[in-house]
Amino acid sequence: MKLYGALEAGGTKMVLAVLDSCGNEISRTILPTLTPQETLPAMIAFFREHPLCGLGIGCFGPLDLNPASPAFGTILQTPKLAWRGVPILKAFREALDIPAALDTDVNAAALAEAKLGAAKGLSGCLYLTVGTGIGGGLIVNGGPVHGLTHPEFGHLLLAPEADDPAPEGFCPSHAHCAEGLASGPAIEKRWGISARELPPGHPAWDLEARYLAQVCADAMLALSPEKIILGGGVMHREGLLPLIRKHTLRLLNGYISAPAVENGLADYIVSPGLGDRSGILGAWLLGLSAAG
Amino acid sequence: MKLYGALEAGGTKMVLAVLDSCGNEISRTILPTLTPQETLPAMIAFFREHPLCGLGIGCFGPLDLNPASPAFGTILQTPKLAWRGVPILKAFREALDIPAALDTDVNAAALAEAKLGAAKGLSGCLYLTVGTGIGGGLIVNGGPVHGLTHPEFGHLLLAPEADDPAPEGFCPSHAHCAEGLASGPAIEKRWGISARELPPGHPAWDLEARYLAQVCADAMLALSPEKIILGGGVMHREGLLPLIRKHTLRLLNGYISAPAVENGLADYIVSPGLGDRSGILGAWLLGLSAAG
Repeated sequence: MKLYGALEAGGTKMVLAVLDSCGNEISRTILPTLTPQETLPAMIAFFREHPLCGLGIGCFGPLDLNPASPAFGTILQTPKLAWRGVPILKAFREALDIPAALDTDVNAAALAEAKLGAAKGLSGCLYLTVGTGIGGGLIVNGGPVHGLTHPEFGHLLLAPEADDPAPEGFCPSHAHCAEGLASGPAIEKRWGISARELPPGHPAWDLEARYLAQVCADAMLALSPEKIILGGGVMHREGLLPLIRKHTLRLLNGYISAPAVENGLADYIVSPGLGDRSGILGAWLLGLSAAG
Repeated sequence: MKLYGALEAGGTKMVLAVLDSCGNEISRTILPTLTPQETLPAMIAFFREHPLCGLGIGCFGPLDLNPASPAFGTILQTPKLAWRGVPILKAFREALDIPAALDTDVNAAALAEAKLGAAKGLSGCLYLTVGTGIGGGLIVNGGPVHGLTHPEFGHLLLAPEADDPAPEGFCPSHAHCAEGLASGPAIEKRWGISARELPPGHPAWDLEARYLAQVCADAMLALSPEKIILGGGVMHREGLLPLIRKHTLRLLNGYISAPAVENGLADYIVSPGLGDRSGILGAWLLGLSAAG
């Protein structure tokens, strides 16, 4: 039985799993994200317990994913200072001596949703996660999108809504970008109460839906994904997804003509088909393809 | 010598050419875009004069480009009413009895720029044209992007600039979309004078650059194209391109770390490498691939 390692590397925790070639999970562990000096050896020790054919890593960004770059496989200007400049791909390749592949956490999740989840059978999708940040992974023409760098959907510039008490948002880098306006922490800073505690009828939710609808409409106009998948903690709020669909339809105003639009976007803007397993399964798919 | 037909179908004129397999032009004609009843037979007559192996068509949109759709190859809800519902691909395939392929005019131009022009050697690019409308063609992972439909970059929603005397723009479908704010006609409606006649120091140009910079920044954040190519009549204005680069850098605010950004975007946001031949060469490439 061939085994593959999968790592979902996040800012607060590392999810590590070993899966067989059918995607069955053989072993799993979760480690807190401390410093690279502490956490890298612990992760390597876990993977060394298994005879792996390949390893896939879905990691928080930004990452250098340009194979021609000297810094290929390195974590770039992350606010998690201890992890800046860490050559995460090389560290695992050298320690484990197996083929390994790296992509952003959201590209990995998008890949899993495109191959196995809500966008199965399609040639691509956009996977957006709305939680402590906003991130977007993108599969087009069957593969993850790496262009100049990789998508940074969370920083898409939006038009502030007229009734927003904090129309500039809270991103330290950009006025009125998606993450600054609509991430979980942005909701909490704007209203002085955490997203989890905001009651269902609060105006925060319609505003949130309008901002996420701007992201969906812009995505449809700019790159016409075959499906938009919305995951992350904020999306667990009941009723938010239909509200996003409603406002997206309003913004498009009949301009895009497709059955999915005529159908009210009910099968187009959807929840992840793999639940919270998109990330780890995406890493596994990366590991499979690295092993060849 | 194998010959291929290329059609660049626009709202005011049709450019038809016959090229050999190296892209040398053997024959060319330009016809005004009248009704389909008048113009289609005239175009078919031109192509019939040559023994063609294949035909490529880059056409104004929106188009149905979904091979599984009953309306595949048809022009959709265009404001050019006479052309709505015209099955342009089928009309040529049946009349000429040769393999033919259809894409948007801007996807065709993007394809030519990616294979032969400013983005040669890269796996993709974004080609934007700014003229009587704004359109965007997109090549990702080596192929044109067709997802749910095809990109409609011109209708990307932008944030109105505080000093804009017409911040809602002039698109009949969308408040503050790119085309409504920054196309040639939008400039003329806002300032009461045509873009061509606006003097160089007029505030219109900085505003125009800020809107087009929003489009460039959003494109970089959402899909990270390997290069952005700006064509179309409005882009002929001297000094506009450097101003767009300047404002794009300001909007990104250091967030995207890549040599192209550190280099001031001078080699990244560029003019078409093929000049005004991107469209017809893109159609020729479509014809080549249709012939197989």
